[in-house]
Amino acid sequence: MGLRFALMGTYARFTVEERRRLLLELGLQLFSARPYDEISIEEIAREAGMAKGLLYHYFPSKRDFYVECLRAAAREFRVRTEPDPALPPREQLRASLAAYLHHVRAHLASYQAIVRGGIGSDPEVVEIMESNRRLVLHRVLRANEASEDDRLLCIAIRGWIGFVESATLHWAESGGADQDELLEIMVATLGTTIRLRHAGGSRPAVV
Amino acid sequence: MGLRFALMGTYARFTVEERRRLLLELGLQLFSARPYDEISIEEIAREAGMAKGLLYHYFPSKRDFYVECLRAAAREFRVRTEPDPALPPREQLRASLAAYLHHVRAHLASYQAIVRGGIGSDPEVVEIMESNRRLVLHRVLRANEASEDDRLLCIAIRGWIGFVESATLHWAESGGADQDELLEIMVATLGTTIRLRHAGGSRPAVV
Repeated sequence: MGLRFALMGTYARFTVEERRRLLLELGLQLFSARPYDEISIEEIAREAGMAKGLLYHYFPSKRDFYVECLRAAAREFRVRTEPDPALPPREQLRASLAAYLHHVRAHLASYQAIVRGGIGSDPEVVEIMESNRRLVLHRVLRANEASEDDRLLCIAIRGWIGFVESATLHWAESGGADQDELLEIMVATLGTTIRLRHAGGSRPAVV
Repeated sequence: MGLRFALMGTYARFTVEERRRLLLELGLQLFSARPYDEISIEEIAREAGMAKGLLYHYFPSKRDFYVECLRAAAREFRVRTEPDPALPPREQLRASLAAYLHHVRAHLASYQAIVRGGIGSDPEVVEIMESNRRLVLHRVLRANEASEDDRLLCIAIRGWIGFVESATLHWAESGGADQDELLEIMVATLGTTIRLRHAGGSRPAVV
């Protein structure tokens, strides 16, 4: 467990906020590697080199800890993939997807936890994943000057988000080669999706 | 709960196998409506109009019951979407997708449970969902005379499966209108996916 040393030996050097962040990273590694039900608070405390009582000081329960881990990972993805308005529309999409793929490869465990979910039907967990997807939906709608009232377009964009998540997961899990080719497939698929619903628009599809 | 009457009043009329099937349908309704953790064996027995001890006779634990519910729903999807080899390739894809969408609309609760998962990181649950996706992957590969060795094509088809699942979920949850338009978007998206990786092939993409 790569983070253990950070939380043990040099523990006192960190601020409360930094310790909290390190705990969340550790949690994502643990929850990504094994089922939620199999991981106990005792194990988390042990891996962190921290007394169980102190861990409870940061997070009142295992579920709370898990939810906060997911929330932190989802926030990180949101920030990394923020489109750069200085770029032309098509390049905004490419840059955003490239940042996304790069971040997934570097943080596969977090990504697996976000996309697969550990306690998937927990409403708070669903909401964390859903809020990121809604954000992408609105980025795509805005970039294509489309509205949420186009119900079928929204469904198709939701489909595309599922495409990106599923392809990315399998790509990263199989080693993460051919990033540029995968990115072009994602760009083309969004293009097909948007064109079919939005035949009037000549602007390229953008995230 | 629509199934309750079936399990109560006319209970004795059913064979053991039929009772088991009705219990699985009831379970899918329950697990789709509320989080897994919130549903107790007591509630399942009450809804089925059955003593708890008798329920344990059919399923040794809540988790076993849940896993069997998912397995039954996944099997049903597999059977319904079996491609018809008598049709031309493109029509096999259309017919299979049409059967899929029709079945989702009629069994939205089961679909939500399969796609969203209730105890998502449970290895057995993941395997049930994964085995259906692998089947679709192989149907698409076979229909396009492609091989599993084309790693990037497999990733792209996995992406497309994610597209279908996500679009279908949002389509069904928002009322299930415009089935034909959605189906054409799915066909076109698979076409884009296959063409990019399989430029030599002139045959249309098929599921």
